[in-house]
Amino acid sequence: MKRLAVLGSTGSIGRQTLDVVRALPRQFRVVGLAAGQNTDLLAEQINEFKPQFAYYSPVNSEDRKKQARLADIECEFMSLEEIAGHPQVDMVVMATSGKAGLNPTLAAVKAGKNIALANKESLVMAGEIITSEAKLSGAQILPVDSEHSAIWQCLNGETQKPVQIILTASGGPFRDYSPAQLGEVTVEQALKHPSWRMGRKVTIDSATLMNKGLEVIEAHWLFNMPYDGIRVIVHPQSIIHSMVEFADGSVKAQLSYPDMRLPIQYALSYPDRLPNPRLPKIDWSKITDLTFAEPDADTFHCLRLAIEVGRKGGTYPAVLCAADEVAVELFLSRRIRFIDIAAIIERTLEQHQAVNNPGIEEILAADSWAREKALNLANGVNLC
Amino acid sequence: MKRLAVLGSTGSIGRQTLDVVRALPRQFRVVGLAAGQNTDLLAEQINEFKPQFAYYSPVNSEDRKKQARLADIECEFMSLEEIAGHPQVDMVVMATSGKAGLNPTLAAVKAGKNIALANKESLVMAGEIITSEAKLSGAQILPVDSEHSAIWQCLNGETQKPVQIILTASGGPFRDYSPAQLGEVTVEQALKHPSWRMGRKVTIDSATLMNKGLEVIEAHWLFNMPYDGIRVIVHPQSIIHSMVEFADGSVKAQLSYPDMRLPIQYALSYPDRLPNPRLPKIDWSKITDLTFAEPDADTFHCLRLAIEVGRKGGTYPAVLCAADEVAVELFLSRRIRFIDIAAIIERTLEQHQAVNNPGIEEILAADSWAREKALNLANGVNLC
Repeated sequence: MKRLAVLGSTGSIGRQTLDVVRALPRQFRVVGLAAGQNTDLLAEQINEFKPQFAYYSPVNSEDRKKQARLADIECEFMSLEEIAGHPQVDMVVMATSGKAGLNPTLAAVKAGKNIALANKESLVMAGEIITSEAKLSGAQILPVDSEHSAIWQCLNGETQKPVQIILTASGGPFRDYSPAQLGEVTVEQALKHPSWRMGRKVTIDSATLMNKGLEVIEAHWLFNMPYDGIRVIVHPQSIIHSMVEFADGSVKAQLSYPDMRLPIQYALSYPDRLPNPRLPKIDWSKITDLTFAEPDADTFHCLRLAIEVGRKGGTYPAVLCAADEVAVELFLSRRIRFIDIAAIIERTLEQHQAVNNPGIEEILAADSWAREKALNLANGVNLC
Repeated sequence: MKRLAVLGSTGSIGRQTLDVVRALPRQFRVVGLAAGQNTDLLAEQINEFKPQFAYYSPVNSEDRKKQARLADIECEFMSLEEIAGHPQVDMVVMATSGKAGLNPTLAAVKAGKNIALANKESLVMAGEIITSEAKLSGAQILPVDSEHSAIWQCLNGETQKPVQIILTASGGPFRDYSPAQLGEVTVEQALKHPSWRMGRKVTIDSATLMNKGLEVIEAHWLFNMPYDGIRVIVHPQSIIHSMVEFADGSVKAQLSYPDMRLPIQYALSYPDRLPNPRLPKIDWSKITDLTFAEPDADTFHCLRLAIEVGRKGGTYPAVLCAADEVAVELFLSRRIRFIDIAAIIERTLEQHQAVNNPGIEEILAADSWAREKALNLANGVNLC
C-alpha cells in the first residue's frame, strides 16, 4: 500500500491520479491533497479520500478553519512544502502547474521522497538544482508526462545510456499551418487539441509547440542527455509516445491510446504494472497507419526558442517559462494574437541579463522580472 | 571476450554472424565453425577466423583429413554435438536451418551453454523438451529471429509477464493476393521478399506465412505464452519487429531497418549493446508511414495450420515442419504449385497418428514419417 500526496489534485492530472487510485484502492492510499482555488472540488475529494492532511491556496489561520469546516472531516491543513516532505508520505504526485510546483518539488526532493512529476516548470526552471538535490537525497524522480514516461519505460532494464531520445509531438491543431494562417487562429481553435484532453495552459503550449520545447529541456535533465541527442518528430496520431535509440541502432517505442492515466499509474506502480480495466487497450484492428514528419521550427518559433534556451541554461529557462505563462494567459483572455505568444517570449529573452548557475532565489527573481517584462511588452504589441 | 561456436556458418545467418564478429573483434572470438556442404566457404572462414575446431557434413575419418588439408591450418574436426557442448565455447550460435539444428541445440542446452538460437525448427519440433532441459541446466536461450529479439528487448527490465505478444509480419510478396492469384505465382516471384534478404527456405516460408506460424509456436515456448496471448499483425514496412502489451495496457515495440545483424549482435552482446558502424540507423526524415493490417488466414492456410498445430502439440509440430520442408523443396524445384505447399502439409497432418508428450526419438520418427508421406502426397497432386 503506497501512501500518496497529490499536489494539484483538482487540476487535470490531479483528477486523473485520483481516478487511478479509485481503480486500485488496495495498492494506493491518498494521505495528502492540495489544490489552488477550487475549494469545492477539494472538499469533495477530501470527503471521498479522507486524507490525513491537505492544503489550499492561500493558507492563513482563518482559511484553515474554513477549510476544516468545508471538508467536514478531520483533516490537518498545512503548507505544500510540509505535505511534500511529510513522513507519512511514500510518494508525492506533483501535479500543480506552473512555478507553484517549484518549491514543493524541491521540498520533496530534499526529503528524499519519490516524486511522480507532472509539473514541467520545476525541471525546466531549476533542473540542475533539482537533479543534484535528488542525487544527494536519493529521491527518485518518476516522470508522468506521457513522453518522458515512454522514454523511461523504454530504458527499463537497459545497461547503457541511449544515444538518442526521440520525442514525439502530435503537432497540435495547427500542424500544417503557414505563418499567415497562424496569425488568424482563435482561442477556441487553439483549445481544440486533436488527440489529448488537457488543461488550458498545456493545450495552448501544445498548439505553439512550446510544450514540446519544454519537454526537450525536461528530457535533458531527467535522462542526463545532451541536447544534440534529443530529437522531436511530429506523429499526429499520438499513439507512439516517444522512442529511444541505443548504441546498436535498435530503437524502442512505447505505445498506447492518449490517456494520461497510464503514465500516471506507471509512475505510481513502478517497477510493477497493474491491470486497470479503466485504461483503454489498443485495438489493433483499428490502428492502420502511424505517420511521422519533421516539425516546422521555422513556423513554430516556441519550439526553437525553448531548445536554444535549454542549451544556454542559467536563468534563461525560467524567463522562458514565465514569459510563456504570461503570454498564454493574455492570449486566453483575447488580449494578444496566437503568434504574439512567441514574439513576446522572444523579446523578453532578448532583454534578459542572465545569471549562470543560479540559486533558487535568482531563478525566482528572473521569473518575476520576466513576468513584468512580458506584460510590458504585451502592452506594446498590436492588441486584439 | 566471448568465445563463440557458429553452427551453420556458411548460411545466411551464419555469414551475418561472422560479419558482426568482424566488426567487433575485441568482444567476440570464433572458436568453432560448422557448415553443411559448402566446404569452400567454410575453408575461407576457417582461414580467416582460425577457430580451434570445426565440422562439416558428413564427417568420417577420410573427410576429416580432407578438411584439415582444405583449411590448411590447425583445426580439430569434431561432431556438431561435440562443438555445441565444448568447454571452450561460451555461446553457441545455432544458425543451421531445418531439423539438423535439433540435436546440436539439445546438446548445447544439456551442456548449459547460452544459445543464440536462429534455428526455428528445434523449438517448433521439441519446444517442451528444449525449454525443460534449459531450465534444468541453466542454459539461456537468446532469440535471434528479429521478431523474438524484439519481444525479448521489450521485456527487458519488466517484472511481470506480458498479457499479449504482437508478432509483426511483412505479409510477404503476395500480401494482397486472392486464392486465385496465389495459384499462379512463380518461384521467382516467391523468392522476391519485399523487405528482408534471407535464405531460400525461409523466404518461401515468408511468402506462405508459414514462417509467421512457426514464429507463433517459437514465441509460445520462448516466452511461455499461451496461444491466445499471441497475435499476428501485418506490417509491410518491416520496421516494427514485434510488440508486447502489458497488464496496464502499455505496449512496447522494437524498431530498426530489416537487418538480421542487429538481432544477432544483441543476442551476442546481451545484456549490453555495442556500437557497430556497419549496422544501419533509422533515418527518421525518411520514415513517414508505418501501416498495419489483419493477416488473411483464409487465404494463407499455412498460418492457420501452424497455429492449430501449435495448440495441439505432441508430434504435430514436427510433422508440420517436415512436410513444409519437403513441400517447399518441391516448389523450389518446380514440381508443385505455390498453393500445393499448404495442401500437402494439411493432408500430411490429417493422416498423422500423433504421439503426446513425445521424446526426441518419437519426434524424429514423426519427422521421417512426414517426409515420406508428404512426398507421396505430392506425387498425387497436379504436378506442374
